[in-house]
Order: sequence, then C-alpha cells, then structure tokens
Amino acid sequence: LKICTTIASSSSLDLEKQIKQAFADGTNFVEIRFDFLPLSEMQDSLRIANGFRNKAVFTLRPDSQKGKFSGSADERVNWLKELSLSRPMLLDVEYDTLINHEELVDFLTDHKARILVSWHDFERTPANESLLDLIGQMRIYGNFLKIVTTAEHIQDCIRLLDLYKVVTNLDLILFAMGELGVLSRILCTIYGNAPFTYASLGKSVVPGQLTLLEMRKLYEGMNL
Amino acid sequence: LKICTTIASSSSLDLEKQIKQAFADGTNFVEIRFDFLPLSEMQDSLRIANGFRNKAVFTLRPDSQKGKFSGSADERVNWLKELSLSRPMLLDVEYDTLINHEELVDFLTDHKARILVSWHDFERTPANESLLDLIGQMRIYGNFLKIVTTAEHIQDCIRLLDLYKVVTNLDLILFAMGELGVLSRILCTIYGNAPFTYASLGKSVVPGQLTLLEMRKLYEGMNL
Repeated sequence: LKICTTIASSSSLDLEKQIKQAFADGTNFVEIRFDFLPLSEMQDSLRIANGFRNKAVFTLRPDSQKGKFSGSADERVNWLKELSLSRPMLLDVEYDTLINHEELVDFLTDHKARILVSWHDFERTPANESLLDLIGQMRIYGNFLKIVTTAEHIQDCIRLLDLYKVVTNLDLILFAMGELGVLSRILCTIYGNAPFTYASLGKSVVPGQLTLLEMRKLYEGMNL
Repeated sequence: LKICTTIASSSSLDLEKQIKQAFADGTNFVEIRFDFLPLSEMQDSLRIANGFRNKAVFTLRPDSQKGKFSGSADERVNWLKELSLSRPMLLDVEYDTLINHEELVDFLTDHKARILVSWHDFERTPANESLLDLIGQMRIYGNFLKIVTTAEHIQDCIRLLDLYKVVTNLDLILFAMGELGVLSRILCTIYGNAPFTYASLGKSVVPGQLTLLEMRKLYEGMNL
C-alpha cells in the first residue's frame, strides 16, 4: 500500500526540507507541485527536485485546473518540457493539455518521458460509462492514468471502485475528492489496484486529502 | 470479513423469506429486528427465528432509540427475557436498558444469555476519551459491545477506528452512521477487529448502511 505525498512548497528553500520530511515520515513517493513555486525559483527548485526524481511525480497544474501556475499556456508547455528533461519517475500532464498541444506530445514521445495522464472533475463524479470512454481516450497518451472526481454521495466512491475491476492492462489511479471521497482515497490501493494513493504533508491542499501520517497509520493498521 | 445482515420484516410471513434470502446471498449472520414486527406476530416470528438462532442477533429496539417497539418498558423487558430463552448467538440489549432494569440483568445472568451490550448516538460522535469511559462502564455487563455513533466529519471515522487499537480483551463493534460513517462500517473489520459489520438486505433501514451485496462485493474484492 504505497503513498505519494504532495509537496506544495511556495519557496525553493522550503522545498528540500519538505521533501526530506516526507521521506523521513515514511512516504514512498512525492508529488512536487511546481506550480506552487514562484517562476523566479523554478530553476533552483528543479535542481533540488532532481535529487529525488526517481521517486517523484512532477506536476505543474494550471490555475484553470485549480493549480497555481499563472503563466501563459506557452510558458507552461515550455516548463513541462523542461521538467520532462529531468526524467522524473512520472511527469503529470493533464489530458486537456495533451489534446491541445500536439507538439508537446511529440516532444514527450521523442524524449521517452514517462507521463501520468491526469484528468479532474471538481464538481461531480461522471457516470462510469463516461469514465470508461474517457479512459479509452486518455490511454492513447500513455498507460499511466490519473482520474480524480468529486464525490457528492458515498455511492460515488463505491461505483468508482468498480472501475478497477473492469479496467486492465494499465496503471490507474482513480479516486474522488471531498469528505465523501475519502473512502475511495483509502480503498483505491486495497480494493482497487492503484499503484499508490496521494496524501498531504501537513494541512491538506486538496479537499478530503488525508495527511501522510494519517494514511500511513491506516495502511499499517490494516489486518491484511 | 464477516457480515451481519439486518432483517427488518414487518410480518412473520416475510421474516423467514428474508432470513433465507440473506443467507442465500452470503451473509454470515442475521440481526432480527423484532421491533419491526407487530406484537401479535411475535410468537410466530420467534418460532421462525429459532431455526436460525445460532447465527442470529436478536434485537428489540425501543422507539426512544429509533426502534419500532412501541409497547411499554415492562412489556419490552418481558419480551427481551422471552427472546433470551431462545438462546440466540447474541441478544442485543441497550446499555440504558441494562442500567435501568437490574432484575433483567439478573435474569440474563442466571440464564447465561450471551448479550451484545449496545449504545447509540444519533447526533454526533463523542470524544474518544468519553467513548473509552463508556466502554469501561458497558463492559461491566458483558464482553461483547456495540457502540454506534453518527459521523459529522470523516475525521470522526478515523479517530473512532483508533479505539480498536487501544481496546483489548473484548469483542467490540464500533462504527459511525451517516454517509460520512460508511468508511468506519467498511474498515471496522479490516482496520479494527470487529467480529462483523452490519448490512441491510435491500433498501437500508439505517442511514449509511450498505446492502449485503454491496458489502460482500467490497469485502470479496479487497486485495488482502
């Protein structure tokens, strides 16, 4: 039961400290949210992140998807290329970004970047049939997918988990945000075969995300 | 991972059908909610229930605890004695009932009835310290306890589950009702060591209760 801890530092100074703390606290992987860092500190931050790249997901979420990157779309694409050149374990790239930037797709393909194709719904959990269609479209871009929805009812979690039993031959991370989504965050690796679940280091930056220490306590306490 | 399915039939005719259906659908135990049956059908129902008593919890919840039994307190105490004489696997008796009916306690002790001491909070989840105090008081009456609270936040589930790691030497069933409590209903047997969790046969009679088929699907699908 593996955990990836989201690191949302707002300064490169803090970044190394937080990453080290996450590993000291027992995380398996870290997600480095480069969009929380000021553009002026990106190069320094990337140098720091490089030291952990084998166990890191690099993410640069645009503000249109509740991220903090406020530069232009072109700037973001350039930074995504730059991030990919560090060869992180996974580079998180939104499905929408891939659709709209063919040249980025070519670049990532040419450089054999390992990408995590991501998709978010901040309002609801679409029907499973829609999600299956979506998975079919997303997997054109890679075999490592992340689909995150928002749970309005506990049943949203339960039917989401069903998808793990019908989708095969790919690494899928699928869960719902929100307090009612926590069940899916915990069970995605136990009922589902998600390679890891996400946690926060301290106070969560995402609704419903448990902290690393909470998630570890739960995972280690399971009578498995 | 064992499941006890709540049977809330409103006629003795239906009772046998529903119990058989629950076992056919793979339940490990049934909880027979005698309070849903009309008083005039209690004797017939008890005769039917007798056939399943080794795998049954007998419950006669008063309306003061969201049950349906509308007779007097004395009538209920008499029926609880009657139910105990069938020697079910467990007779659910509310902690409040035991406190207020010393003579019932003596009767159950004399007859070596196996009781499940139960306590409910339909509004909230008290602090863990309060619940530990409560457990200390409840265990005077037996070693099989059921404490059911109401989750207002997902954190209520997570801290409730902590109690399983500090309470030892008794059979404890502890979870929270409500949509936000579902996590604890599922994990009470996986993170906690609850001997079983509860499910409903069809449409739930209790907020947040999953159906037997939903719970079985989850439990059987866990990568344990």
